[in-house]
Amino acid sequence: DDSWTVAGRTFRSRLIVGTGKYKDFAQNAAAVEASGAEIVTVAVRRVNVADPKAPMLTDYIDPKKITYLPNTAGCYTGEEAIRTLRLAREAGGWDLVKLEVLGEAKTLYPDMVETLRATEVLAKEGFKPMVYCVDDPIAAKRLEDAGAVAIMPLGAPIGSGLGIQNRVTIRLIVEGTSLPVLVDAGVGTASEASSAMELGCAGVLMNTAIAEAKNPVMMARAMKLAVESGRLAYRAGRMGRRMYADPSSPLAGLI
Amino acid sequence: DDSWTVAGRTFRSRLIVGTGKYKDFAQNAAAVEASGAEIVTVAVRRVNVADPKAPMLTDYIDPKKITYLPNTAGCYTGEEAIRTLRLAREAGGWDLVKLEVLGEAKTLYPDMVETLRATEVLAKEGFKPMVYCVDDPIAAKRLEDAGAVAIMPLGAPIGSGLGIQNRVTIRLIVEGTSLPVLVDAGVGTASEASSAMELGCAGVLMNTAIAEAKNPVMMARAMKLAVESGRLAYRAGRMGRRMYADPSSPLAGLI
Amino acid sequence: DDSWTVAGRTFRSRLIVGTGKYKDFAQNAAAVEASGAEIVTVAVRRVNVADPKAPMLTDYIDPKKITYLPNTAGCYTGEEAIRTLRLAREAGGWDLVKLEVLGEAKTLYPDMVETLRATEVLAKEGFKPMVYCVDDPIAAKRLEDAGAVAIMPLGAPIGSGLGIQNRVTIRLIVEGTSLPVLVDAGVGTASEASSAMELGCAGVLMNTAIAEAKNPVMMARAMKLAVESGRLAYRAGRMGRRMYADPSSPLAGLI
Amino acid sequence: DDSWTVAGRTFRSRLIVGTGKYKDFAQNAAAVEASGAEIVTVAVRRVNVADPKAPMLTDYIDPKKITYLPNTAGCYTGEEAIRTLRLAREAGGWDLVKLEVLGEAKTLYPDMVETLRATEVLAKEGFKPMVYCVDDPIAAKRLEDAGAVAIMPLGAPIGSGLGIQNRVTIRLIVEGTSLPVLVDAGVGTASEASSAMELGCAGVLMNTAIAEAKNPVMMARAMKLAVESGRLAYRAGRMGRRMYADPSSPLAGLI
Repeated sequence: DDSWTVAGRTFRSRLIVGTGKYKDFAQNAAAVEASGAEIVTVAVRRVNVADPKAPMLTDYIDPKKITYLPNTAGCYTGEEAIRTLRLAREAGGWDLVKLEVLGEAKTLYPDMVETLRATEVLAKEGFKPMVYCVDDPIAAKRLEDAGAVAIMPLGAPIGSGLGIQNRVTIRLIVEGTSLPVLVDAGVGTASEASSAMELGCAGVLMNTAIAEAKNPVMMARAMKLAVESGRLAYRAGRMGRRMYADPSSPLAGLI
Repeated sequence: DDSWTVAGRTFRSRLIVGTGKYKDFAQNAAAVEASGAEIVTVAVRRVNVADPKAPMLTDYIDPKKITYLPNTAGCYTGEEAIRTLRLAREAGGWDLVKLEVLGEAKTLYPDMVETLRATEVLAKEGFKPMVYCVDDPIAAKRLEDAGAVAIMPLGAPIGSGLGIQNRVTIRLIVEGTSLPVLVDAGVGTASEASSAMELGCAGVLMNTAIAEAKNPVMMARAMKLAVESGRLAYRAGRMGRRMYADPSSPLAGLI
Repeated sequence: DDSWTVAGRTFRSRLIVGTGKYKDFAQNAAAVEASGAEIVTVAVRRVNVADPKAPMLTDYIDPKKITYLPNTAGCYTGEEAIRTLRLAREAGGWDLVKLEVLGEAKTLYPDMVETLRATEVLAKEGFKPMVYCVDDPIAAKRLEDAGAVAIMPLGAPIGSGLGIQNRVTIRLIVEGTSLPVLVDAGVGTASEASSAMELGCAGVLMNTAIAEAKNPVMMARAMKLAVESGRLAYRAGRMGRRMYADPSSPLAGLI
Repeated sequence: DDSWTVAGRTFRSRLIVGTGKYKDFAQNAAAVEASGAEIVTVAVRRVNVADPKAPMLTDYIDPKKITYLPNTAGCYTGEEAIRTLRLAREAGGWDLVKLEVLGEAKTLYPDMVETLRATEVLAKEGFKPMVYCVDDPIAAKRLEDAGAVAIMPLGAPIGSGLGIQNRVTIRLIVEGTSLPVLVDAGVGTASEASSAMELGCAGVLMNTAIAEAKNPVMMARAMKLAVESGRLAYRAGRMGRRMYADPSSPLAGLI
């Protein structure tokens, strides 16, 4: 058994997937199923609460089986993000949430000053914030002190698919915190998800890499296996690197 | 179904694993089992044929269930390699073989002149040679013309664990040949195996990455999943890369 | 002419070099000379002010010819850093300073909360702070708003020589600010300094890469040329990348 | 002094530049001048020998000052290449030549079988062939045995500007041969030229990276400095890499 725990809740899958970029809810649900994810994240501001007759994601992805993780995508100040999550809690009772406070639309990088402030407020109000952040080991420690329950550094800009740009910082964050670390953005293909796990991360969150693949459901399964393989490789302990070749064991030389 | 075919034989697993670097035959067999491999490669020159009472690999890995692929590890001339494979065929009837003709002990790089010559001879004698080679798209075409049944370029020096050094050449080889291409050396951890498959390779062969992991059996399973995930990602068609961030779909903005 | 300007002062050299890791002041001075640097940075806390008879750096590197840039290396809070720079200003009249507020000894990453706060205080007191920071485009904007005169993101941990880990963030910082951007840590060899400049940076600051080279003076000259070459390559506008080969112009075919 | 020698001729510049992709001969000459190159390479098959009134490259780049290195670009068999160089020798007396025998138009990778054979023939006829080849340490040794005077591995496909793909093989080639090694293709910008030199190469040959820059003459100067800086960095001996940060020398702590 190799489960992980965040804010007292235990999960077996280490892959968190997004919502909101799929063709329709049915495809989204099929991708979640194929990914093996036990958590999906939903932008609270994107949820349609106006038209009660419109189809809803919960009709396709059962909140009794899959943990919904409300996020604050689209919030550019701490206040907006806090208000959004309060509404989410009132509406659905969620306290395990994903906080993201963006700094600008071009890079979608987090504003860490606002993020830290909001983390503190939310923690005091009893929320359990998993926090999208820059890949900065000191910021990670500050988030931990402020009450974050998970550190979620970006690997590259959201939706860029560029892969993990800085393996040094992710490693330093993992080494420096006792919280679970989940790479939260930038993964474009399977090997990049494995690679995040090989650094000792607790998990990976992705949206675009699955939703924008030519075959999202097949890619979801690829990502499931990639995260599992990277985790196993981390636990198995990789071989050392050599500057030169190394033959197999001495030849018996009988022929 | 996503099987692949080499010399008329069809396999479901795309991971070929080695023998000869494990603690003992039992560990080797357990790793093969965990890897899901349907083919194991064995250095003919390393096989003990002198002492009939000594334990044998075939006692642990059943040749009726797993295809044995004899290889010419330790051969530094085409003649040696050809002679070695003739002996293997006489002894066990194998014609699907892995040819490697090494150029020197330090790098264990193949000598392509000898490799090409031996490929031709072997093909004429009815062998089906899968050929270890440099990552050179022109050499790959020449091997194909000479009668190779699979192209097996190195990703990095044998046993180095440095990962695939040149993704451009592997891609060009895949694009330029109709034969299956399997990365044959240099993989050190799971993400590198995924990465090879994402380039469109038919498979990956590895030995040290599994045998020298702290937990070889766990790493064998990691590699199984890595190869499967990379293959699925290739088939699923990855998202494009972006220079800047890309938000999720337009926010409904109802809250 | 291709000079650059910071806080109203114009320089031709785009390489800033450190002090404090050399064998002796003479070697330090020789390296500065070879580097062509017009600015050297000095840790205020490291300066010996106790023994007036001890040799001084200013005996070797003439402050009338070379701009001294006092820095706050070793300061772990904004208060310490501010106090240190006030002392420097009282002692030597410096207002162009390099602010670094460290978060911890292991990574020597900046604490951005303290760094931002100290930047504001210093700017209000009339200092012109060039600021060591994480490679975060939003933090860069906040520093600009707070009164920084230059953005100095790290390329990798101080003294690590690992090279620029994240080219995406450095590019985004350069695109997002009107201030000069100088990569401040992590460069290990010449090509990495060129590479920083090719991203459009105004300059590079380094210490260990020169001081710990086997031949520091020769490496100082290497770095001078590297920074110049990277700058020229940036200005010249590099060729596009191609997935395949591209021959020279059509052959005349006369032979 | 840091000159290098090939076939008994000594040069100070380690940058060889091409011809044939420039706007006109005047721009080509200006780029050669800015690059500091002492050798230019010219495709024999591209030289106009039909119209004696047409302008000639030698009117712009003085063969008495700059060594012309005839090359066999566009030759796809050993025979073609040999014939081309014999004509060049008859016409201009050249024996120091650059051999390239291409395998196909898409990748412009060399055909190493033909290349080896042509090298042998040319060496026996008294030519001094500098040989374009794949980045294969064993092929490099074979070329040396066959009479090559310099090994010129590609860093990436000709004209691709992708940069040196495989630093491991270039290092192994440099370590394994007593001949000068010059990276011959693939460099796209200045830092990549430095990087080649940091591996211990004797020099770099480039054409497209200069000719296709927006400002070819400025890029030529960038490349001159890049090659010099990389060479100096190699000779100076770079610092070691560290997994963590390393502060400057212990603080005196007097303030």
